[in-house]
This record gives sequence, structure tokens and C-alpha cells, in this order.
Amino acid sequence: MTDVQPQVGVVMGSRSDWETLSGAADVLQDFEVPHECRVVSAHRTPQLLADYAAEAEQRGLRAIIAGAGGAAHLPGMLAAQTTVPVLGVPVASKSLNGLDSLLSIVQMPAGVPVATFAIGSAGARNAALFAVALLAGEEPRLCEALHAYRDAQAQRVYGEELS
Amino acid sequence: MTDVQPQVGVVMGSRSDWETLSGAADVLQDFEVPHECRVVSAHRTPQLLADYAAEAEQRGLRAIIAGAGGAAHLPGMLAAQTTVPVLGVPVASKSLNGLDSLLSIVQMPAGVPVATFAIGSAGARNAALFAVALLAGEEPRLCEALHAYRDAQAQRVYGEELS
Amino acid sequence: MTDVQPQVGVVMGSRSDWETLSGAADVLQDFEVPHECRVVSAHRTPQLLADYAAEAEQRGLRAIIAGAGGAAHLPGMLAAQTTVPVLGVPVASKSLNGLDSLLSIVQMPAGVPVATFAIGSAGARNAALFAVALLAGEEPRLCEALHAYRDAQAQRVYGEELS
Amino acid sequence: MTDVQPQVGVVMGSRSDWETLSGAADVLQDFEVPHECRVVSAHRTPQLLADYAAEAEQRGLRAIIAGAGGAAHLPGMLAAQTTVPVLGVPVASKSLNGLDSLLSIVQMPAGVPVATFAIGSAGARNAALFAVALLAGEEPRLCEALHAYRDAQAQRVYGEELS
Amino acid sequence: MTDVQPQVGVVMGSRSDWETLSGAADVLQDFEVPHECRVVSAHRTPQLLADYAAEAEQRGLRAIIAGAGGAAHLPGMLAAQTTVPVLGVPVASKSLNGLDSLLSIVQMPAGVPVATFAIGSAGARNAALFAVALLAGEEPRLCEALHAYRDAQAQRVYGEELS
Amino acid sequence: MTDVQPQVGVVMGSRSDWETLSGAADVLQDFEVPHECRVVSAHRTPQLLADYAAEAEQRGLRAIIAGAGGAAHLPGMLAAQTTVPVLGVPVASKSLNGLDSLLSIVQMPAGVPVATFAIGSAGARNAALFAVALLAGEEPRLCEALHAYRDAQAQRVYGEELS
Amino acid sequence: MTDVQPQVGVVMGSRSDWETLSGAADVLQDFEVPHECRVVSAHRTPQLLADYAAEAEQRGLRAIIAGAGGAAHLPGMLAAQTTVPVLGVPVASKSLNGLDSLLSIVQMPAGVPVATFAIGSAGARNAALFAVALLAGEEPRLCEALHAYRDAQAQRVYGEELS
Amino acid sequence: MTDVQPQVGVVMGSRSDWETLSGAADVLQDFEVPHECRVVSAHRTPQLLADYAAEAEQRGLRAIIAGAGGAAHLPGMLAAQTTVPVLGVPVASKSLNGLDSLLSIVQMPAGVPVATFAIGSAGARNAALFAVALLAGEEPRLCEALHAYRDAQAQRVYGEELS
Repeated sequence: MTDVQPQVGVVMGSRSDWETLSGAADVLQDFEVPHECRVVSAHRTPQLLADYAAEAEQRGLRAIIAGAGGAAHLPGMLAAQTTVPVLGVPVASKSLNGLDSLLSIVQMPAGVPVATFAIGSAGARNAALFAVALLAGEEPRLCEALHAYRDAQAQRVYGEELS
Repeated sequence: MTDVQPQVGVVMGSRSDWETLSGAADVLQDFEVPHECRVVSAHRTPQLLADYAAEAEQRGLRAIIAGAGGAAHLPGMLAAQTTVPVLGVPVASKSLNGLDSLLSIVQMPAGVPVATFAIGSAGARNAALFAVALLAGEEPRLCEALHAYRDAQAQRVYGEELS
Repeated sequence: MTDVQPQVGVVMGSRSDWETLSGAADVLQDFEVPHECRVVSAHRTPQLLADYAAEAEQRGLRAIIAGAGGAAHLPGMLAAQTTVPVLGVPVASKSLNGLDSLLSIVQMPAGVPVATFAIGSAGARNAALFAVALLAGEEPRLCEALHAYRDAQAQRVYGEELS
Repeated sequence: MTDVQPQVGVVMGSRSDWETLSGAADVLQDFEVPHECRVVSAHRTPQLLADYAAEAEQRGLRAIIAGAGGAAHLPGMLAAQTTVPVLGVPVASKSLNGLDSLLSIVQMPAGVPVATFAIGSAGARNAALFAVALLAGEEPRLCEALHAYRDAQAQRVYGEELS
Repeated sequence: MTDVQPQVGVVMGSRSDWETLSGAADVLQDFEVPHECRVVSAHRTPQLLADYAAEAEQRGLRAIIAGAGGAAHLPGMLAAQTTVPVLGVPVASKSLNGLDSLLSIVQMPAGVPVATFAIGSAGARNAALFAVALLAGEEPRLCEALHAYRDAQAQRVYGEELS
Repeated sequence: MTDVQPQVGVVMGSRSDWETLSGAADVLQDFEVPHECRVVSAHRTPQLLADYAAEAEQRGLRAIIAGAGGAAHLPGMLAAQTTVPVLGVPVASKSLNGLDSLLSIVQMPAGVPVATFAIGSAGARNAALFAVALLAGEEPRLCEALHAYRDAQAQRVYGEELS
Repeated sequence: MTDVQPQVGVVMGSRSDWETLSGAADVLQDFEVPHECRVVSAHRTPQLLADYAAEAEQRGLRAIIAGAGGAAHLPGMLAAQTTVPVLGVPVASKSLNGLDSLLSIVQMPAGVPVATFAIGSAGARNAALFAVALLAGEEPRLCEALHAYRDAQAQRVYGEELS
Repeated sequence: MTDVQPQVGVVMGSRSDWETLSGAADVLQDFEVPHECRVVSAHRTPQLLADYAAEAEQRGLRAIIAGAGGAAHLPGMLAAQTTVPVLGVPVASKSLNGLDSLLSIVQMPAGVPVATFAIGSAGARNAALFAVALLAGEEPRLCEALHAYRDAQAQRVYGEELS
């Protein structure tokens, strides 16, 4: 997290989701994208959710990464109350392993989009990479950084040994 | 619907859900329970949802029947903003036949309950019967009516012919 | 559990379900709602089930919380034999993680409602909170306690730190 | 159906299940096994269910074929109240195509078995064939008839043309 | 297992299924039903399967309990080659927890029935109890034993303490 | 479609997907966002896919909406070959209703994100609305248009009659 | 079908599967691969299945395409009785849309492989294309024909118009 | 792995898939089939994938075994770019246990086949056995070895003891 005005908000429905969502923060940190992280519960703090969404645009947020599990309403309810792009991360749930989280987030009705990513840590990291890609349209340094990231990633594959 | 102060609210996320939810209204009508029906969309009208929930208790609503499909957030977000009992009805969705609706409604986290019923019309009628049962604790006429309803239902089974 | 006349019954299909259902008892204890807890198996003790249901109304039970796993018939069969509101809790099953329990409880046919909650402990706690909400319609102290519960729950979210 | 003492009972939770269960009756008719067919609803007529199960053994029933859909409790609750073999047939449900029916019937806990067959008409016919096989242990004519049935079935396959 | 002519065969597709199927043998042992247990793999030993099925009737087997996991073909292929009742037990698979086993066993086409039980140990025990019920039609001692089993089972529920 | 340099590409794996994806084109048309539409099959034209991805950035595409069904590899393989944001739309498949399409698109490994939307037409429209939101960060007219769209959408809900 | 010695066998569990499997025959016809088509039911004609498998190798079959639905045992049981490559095609079933067929075919235990293709017609056509690819290793004309097929397929995509 | 020209390629999307795919290499080793193993990621190294596929035929590969998890695009994208037979192995994913992997691999559209095997290690071993069977058509020693493998496998079953 940084002191400057955050460009990306990382929010989650519960403290326990941090284990998953911290991957998003790590990626944003690596790309030096100013961001903030906090718990915003759709069900326990609906007013906080409404306030967060209402202020997102004027606060300069360019994307909101929202992770939740089970009947995961946080991403969709944020998207309902702001036009700032919302990136949803389904957190693996205890009984249904995140299938409920995924369907609760991705199956939005026409009119209010939530960009959804994979269940769990992979999804959290990818949501952050996607946010970087969004910002890269205007920030050449991020565009370069993304290309470098992809190259490094490919190089690691080329170097892998099976034994 | 009646002119008197409604005891039960029947709300749904979309006009197209009325085909399912009208079954709830029919049951309430049969039991002469004052009620109101309207479209309240979690995603398209989040403020209406918040207002409806905030006023439910002082308006004297004793239960809210809420139906929605797909990423169905209406029941859970109503429950998040009122302590009036919320009865959720999963509406069958086009692609996943309501499995997404069901999981989005029933898998609420601890702290904010939504009483969930079956997917589709059976669930809508049962939510209404459950609302009647709630009210029956204080209204002897409803208690009697419910017993009569059960008896008539059993009699119909006894009289059924297979041929 | 208390000595006074119970208002809520907490029943479960097997001793092993107590790990899940004890959460319901804890909530009722916290709200000082008189309640009783016992094993009532639909399959092993159908007569006990029938008796429990038949006596529920005259014994003054205002709600029955029923938890079961797998082919979970306890909630539905209680609901078939009493008009006292039945709140079903799907207990996570070994092989299918409670998906079988959930569908066996929630997919009731029109005519006999079971209010269903989430799979596992969250569902057990929420069933109890829902029972409190039912009683709160007539007991102002419970209404106040529920509001306080919600407020405290929100405050905990506001105070959560991610680090 | 026949006038003589029925050896097999064919019961179903709803009149609408007859479309599926009639296949069981057809098979029993073809094998000239005395049987009876009727609607017995676990949820709408639990007392009828209890009576039917309680009397099954002394009435001479050697097997009960029970079909139901959704939260299908009929087969399991019959099995809970008689030791006569219960053969369960999951009827295809509207929203979930019988997956709920199947899981509600087959996932019985240890102690109370229900022999479960395929969803829909194939399951109904097979339940009847299985009942014939049960009786064939003591009735040589059924044993012969079953063998003839299998032979004829194989011959039909041998004669099939693809064009 | 006993020295006398077995009445029930307990077969399984793999040595590793014994952990599940041993529950069936335990029940048969308790009821003193002569039985045999062995590995018969549909895929690795199809000839053994064919021989086992072909000889079952003349060897006096009254039921075959067959357990298998994954693409579980053992029960259905036995049923295809004998008219002795086949009782299928889906063994929990590694990746899909037995859902594949269940569907592979229960979804038989019309003409060749397999009586299917729950996934895992509960299903194994119930298949054995069902086999006892089949035999009980002709053996009064088993009929009595089954009633006693049920009574004892109910008594255990009555005596359970929650604390 | 427009003559000017497209900002958004709408691609799909098969001509038959156009029924679903045309909804995305309709939305972009309504918002007057320059776009192009074409068939690009991951499996039948992998070179076309590679070329399309390789040129996307220099051609000035700000987002690619990619729809496909079944083993839907188009969105992920585009994302693997460009850093332009890829928005995936699962097209409903014949046998599995799009569950396979959804999982094939959304479950991307960490490193290569695909923003996924709902199965079918709702997802196609939402992908386009999301693309508009991306562009709105730099185009005030789109920002205004989005707000107007949301307002109009809410007004339609307020005006809906149930009868 | 041709008069010469068939290289590929196309078998199916039921006459009704021909609607799906005819697509395999069409592809083989187009590539002028000698083949034969017939009904071989694992459950109704297990001896025919055993004979077909036992003779496959000496009859010169290089691959067997086997389609079946529901508890689909035909491909696996063929593979158990021959080392000729077996290509399984899951036929869409009535209730579960072929998910049961797919799992019954693909989830084979280690030791006996079945190469599985998509549910329904696409799978049937692809099984045939795969058989052609197997033969192409030794028949240069098939190798050329396959490349031409792929080229033509790509050209059709290039020429598709959306309007 | 061997120094001679490989006949089979074993590729996987990630280093972590080696735990599953090593079973394929073991089988090929046992049958003394020259093969190579390497990481080829569809998403991280699409160019490597394209090169690998493009060169497969001229390098003399007779089959490619490709394993991947989650949104598993490796097998299908290889198949799209070569006519060498591709054998897909779904690797068990963290959240959905490989159901996503399986559907992503098997549900290929008509025109580009991927022969799919079971989720996990069983599938990896079977893919290798299937590759051996492909080669056995031309290599008598492999044909013999396969028969011996099957015999030994059967003998192990015959010798298994349950105790």
C-alpha cells in the first residue's frame, strides 16, 4: 500500500479473504500501482459498501478488485453503485470450493457488469494484472512493465527442468 | 393486493420474475394476508432496495418475499439492511436452471440469514405459506386456515386416481 | 439450554451433526431464547419424529431448527407434520460436501415449506438468528438485541486490519 | 393392477409422477405380478405413508417401488418404517432434471437402505424388473420369464439395422 | 466369511475398495448370512467377471453386492450377465468424490437393473442390509433379526446425549 | 460497425456464436464506440488468432471481447498473446448449457488474466458495457453516457407494473 | 460403409445412438476409410460385446469408435477385452445431458485406456477424425487428406460474414 | 527419457503438473518407447506451443501427451496446430478437483479432436498406454508387450487377498 492517491481499491467481504486477496496486493505492489486494501462486507456493512462505491469515481479509483466467498454479493453490489470497473474474485468457500462464489459473482444480469476471474489466488493475482493492463492504456511505464512481466514469465517456463 | 397496510412484501429483481413470484401473491391472496408486490432490482436500483429495506420495519412488514435469478443478490442485500425476516426464492435462470440463483441466495455467511425455498414456482408458493405460518403465531384465524389448507391438500391426495 | 418452556427446538438427524448444530444453540443462548436440543432421526426414529412434530405446536414451540446430512429428510418430514415454521440446516456430507443435503432440504414441493439456510455452521447460526427475528416481532427485547447484534457485527468489520 | 393380493406396491409422491411410474406397472403387468398403484405423498399425507409402511409386511408386499421428485422423501421414509425392500425411482424434476431427486433418494445414511434406480422412465422399468428378480428366487415361472425377457431383448439388438 | 455355501457375493473392482466394502461384509457377518468376498475387476479381469456372473445363479447366490469407483462398470456388467439381483455400491473416487461412480452405476438403461446405494461406507452397509431384507422374505430368523436391528438402532438414538 | 479505427474488437469462435455476441455489438453501437466484429477460431484458425492478438495493441484496440462455447480457448489464447484487456463471454453449449464454456474461460492460471462475464447474451452485453467503462476513464462523453444509461435503466425499473 | 475389410468399427449401445454416431460414419466415408457400423449393447448383449472385442485385432480393426449414453459401459468394456484403440463418444442422455455418459466413459482406472471425445455429435465426428489421424501415420493419402481438411476448415472461417 | 529420436512427446502446462504426468513417462519407460518430457505452457509460452506443434510431425512424433489443469488449453491448442494425435490429461485443479480441466479438454468442437483420459494419474498412465497401443499397430514387440501387460494385470487381480 502507498501514501499517494490510490488508483486501485482492493476490497474483500471478510478478514479471512485476505489470504486470497493479498496476492492482488502483491502484484499491484510489484507494478508500483498505488492502491488501498480494506474489508467491506456487503452483508455486514452495506452502508460502507454504498459509500465506497459512491465515492470511488471522485476519489480517482480506476478499478476496484472485490473478493468474496459463498453467496458473494460484494462485487455485484459495488458494480451496481459505481461505473468504475469492478473486478470480481471468487474466494474458495468451505463446502462448495468456490463454485457458489463463482456463480454468485459471474452470473450478473445484463446492465451491470462484473469482470470475473478464477476461483482463489490465481484469480486474485489475475485481477491485479488486469487492473495493471487497464492503466497501461495511459501509462507507458506500465505497458512496458507488463511486457517485461510476460517475457520473464515465459523465460521461467523455458528454463524449467523435469527430473 | 389489498388497500390495507401490507404485512408481507413480495419483491423481485425483474418484471420477468413475476411469472414465478405471482404464485406467492396468489397464496397470500387466498389466505387474505395484506401484501404488496413490486420490482426492486438489487443491481439496477440499489437505492430503491436500500430504501425498501430501511423502511420495512416501520412500515409494519412482517416478512419480505424476495425472488431473483442468476447472480441473485436481492434477498441477501435486503436481509443485510433490515431485521425483518427475508424469504428468498431462486428464480430459474436460462443457462443454469436456477442452480446459480439457489447458491447465490442460500449460501449466506453467518450473521445475515435468508430463509431460502425451492427453485421456481414451488419455492414462491412455499415462501408465501411460510409467511402465513409466521403470522399464524399471532393470528388464530391464519393458524386455523393453515390447518384447513393442509387438510384439504391431504384430501386431494387421498382422492387421486391413477388410470 | 434452559429450564423454562422452550420456544425453539433444535433437532438433528445424528449425534455427529451436533458439531454443526451447536452453533445454533450458541446463538439462541446468546439471545437468551429458551430452547431445547436433541437427536431426532427421520430414518432411525420416524415415530419420534412424528411425535415431535405433532406436539410442537401445543408445546409452544415457535420454530424448529432441523439439521441433517446426505438424503436429509428430517426438516421436510417435520414440516409435513406441523405448521410450526421449520428451519432447515444442510449438514456437510462426507462425499458430496453437503450438496446432497442442500438439495434434499430445499427442493420441497409446493404445499409444505422448509426455510433453508447455508450448508454447515454458517447455516446453523443463521437459522438461529432467523428464529430470533421471528420472535422479535412480538418481543421488543429481541428486536433491540438483534439491532445491537447487527451494529456490533458492522463495527467489527470497520475495525478490521489487513496486514 | 389385479384383484388378487398384491405382491408389489407402486407408490408415487404425486399424480404427475404417474407418467414416469406407469412404466413400472407395465412391466409388472407383463410379468403377471400382482401389484397395486397409488399416490402416497410423504409431505402432504405423512400419515398415509406411515400406515402404508406399517401394513406392508402383513399385507404380504414383497417389495415397494416408490417414485418421487425434487426433495424426494417418499422412498426413504417408507424404508424407515418397514423392512420390506424399498426400490426408489428418482422422477425428473423441472429445474434440476432429477439430480436433486436422485441425491435425495440414494444418499441414505447407514442403517436404512433404499435400492435406487436411474432417473425417470428407465429407472421405473428397472425397479419393476428388479422386483421381478426378487420374486424369481421363489417363483420358477418368473425366473424363466426373466430369462426369456433377457433373450428377447438381446435378439432385438442383434436384429437392429442402421440406415 | 463362512465355509457353507454363500448366499451373497461381495465383489469389488480393486483391492483398495475393500476399505469401503468391508462394511458390507461386517453386516452380513453380524446377521450370520453366508457370503464370500473377492476382487473382480470389470476392466482388468472381464473374463472373471463373466464367469462369476454366469455361475452366480447355479451357485445359489441370492444377491451380489458389487462396489467400484470412477467409471464403475462392475455392477452393471454383472447385472448384464445374470438375473441374480445386483446391488451396486459407488466407491468414492479421488477427484470427483464418487459422483462419477454413482452416475456410472445408477444410470443404467431400461432392461438391466442395478439397485444402487449411497456413495461409500454407508452404501456398503446398506447394500448388505438390503440383501438381508431380500433373504428375510424366506428366512424368518432374518426377518426377526432385522426388526431387532431396527429397534436397537432406534434405541441408540433415544439414548444420545448432546453436550 | 464503423469506418473509423476500431477501439474494441468483438471476436467469436464460430459463426453460430453471433446470435450471442451481437448483443455486444449492439451495446457498442448504442454508445457509438468504434468496433469490429469477426470470426476467429482458436481451433480452426490458430494462426489468425495469433495474428489478431499480435496486432491488437498497435492497431489501437483497447479491449477485445471474445466469445466461445464448449472447450472455449479463444479468450485465453488471445490473452496469452497480447496485453490488451480480453473480455471473455461463455457461449451456452448444447449439452452442458455453458458450464463448460464458463469454466474453460474463467479458470485461467495466474499470469494471464481473462475478465469473464455471464453465460450467454447477458454476458455479451455486459462485456460491451465493461469495455465502455474502460474507455470512459479517458472519454468524458462515455462517462456521461454510462451514467445516463444507468439512470434510464433504473427509471425503467421504477416504472414497471405487475399485473 | 464399404465392402472391403473394415479398418474402423463404429459401434453403439442402442439404435437411438445412431443419430449421434452417424456423424462418425460420415467423416470416415468422406475420408474413404473402410468401416462398419452396428449396435453392440454392453448391457443387453454382453456376449456380442465380448466377441466383437475378441475378434477385433485379428479382423484387422485399427480403431473402434464406441458411443453410449447414461451408465455408458460399452467403450470401457471393449477396451477391457482388446488392445485395439477404443475411442469413446458420450451420447447425450435425457436427464443429465450426457454428463453421466461422459464420466462413465472417461474416468477409467489406470491400466485400461479409453480415448474420450466431446458429448454428442461433435465428439462423434472428432472420434472419426482421430481415427483418420491414427491411420495417417502409415497412409500418406490420409495424411494429405487430413491436412486438406484442416485447410478447408480454416478457409471457411476466413470467409465467414457476420450480418 | 532416451537419446534416440522420441516417438512420443509428453508436455505439460506447468512444472507442478509433473507429479501427475510422470506416470505417463514411467509407462513409456517401461515399454521402452523413446519419448521426451517438457513444460510447454499455452498461456505463458504460446509461441513455444506453436513451434512444438508445427515441428511435431517432421520430428517424427507419433503422439503427444498433453496435461494441464484449470482452463486447460494446451491439448486443444496443440491439436489445432498439428495432425499428430493429441492425448489430453486433465490435471486435478485446486478448487474444482479437475472438473474444469476435464471439460476444458474434452469438449472440443467438431473438426479438431483431442483424445481425453481420466483426471489425474490414472489418466496420465492411460494416455501412455494408449500411445503404446497406437504404436503397436506397426511394432509387433509393443503388441506383444501390451498383451503381456494386460495378462500380468489380470494375474495380479486373481491373486489379491482381502483380509
